[in-house]
Amino acid sequence: MIDLIGTIAAVLTTLSFVPQAILVIRTKRTEGISLTMYAMFTAGVAAWLVYGLSLGAMPIILANAVTLALASVILTIKIRSVFPAQPSTQGATAATSAPIAS
Amino acid sequence: MIDLIGTIAAVLTTLSFVPQAILVIRTKRTEGISLTMYAMFTAGVAAWLVYGLSLGAMPIILANAVTLALASVILTIKIRSVFPAQPSTQGATAATSAPIAS
Repeated sequence: MIDLIGTIAAVLTTLSFVPQAILVIRTKRTEGISLTMYAMFTAGVAAWLVYGLSLGAMPIILANAVTLALASVILTIKIRSVFPAQPSTQGATAATSAPIAS
Repeated sequence: MIDLIGTIAAVLTTLSFVPQAILVIRTKRTEGISLTMYAMFTAGVAAWLVYGLSLGAMPIILANAVTLALASVILTIKIRSVFPAQPSTQGATAATSAPIAS
């Protein structure tokens, strides 16, 4: 019975990041999401993965590998929204120095 | 060394919900947050707490009790933003039937 509770807990907490990742991928809206949370959480899940690998504990490895992938997607989209990539100036200068049609 | 990694992992994943709870409490902005995620995650953390209590494993109990409190705060604020409380009609009828000052 206790193992069943543990399995349910692992499945719920791991798969709970699927709807969040889908929402962020679809809407690109991340205002309400804390960058600090996902940076800490992703680092923590990576540490759980190392912990599981050190023990050879497959449930910990599987649950945290999936969570790490999902949390990383959310973290990446959040970082892109907070620090949008600057349009490359190279493209801009090429356009401006093009010969003006006489 | 392995225990140290496990402790770091537990502290990071548990405390990562503090900045998210603070952000949501302060801004009440939850557009980017998935209600489905927090419903599943909170249920999952509750199951981890039951699991820890069944085993008498203090680290699992402590980590998940803190996470459950934080996740519940975020979930409650998200639910209130998705299903705002309807202004009670009782207050409205009392106002309309008040005697008009002659």
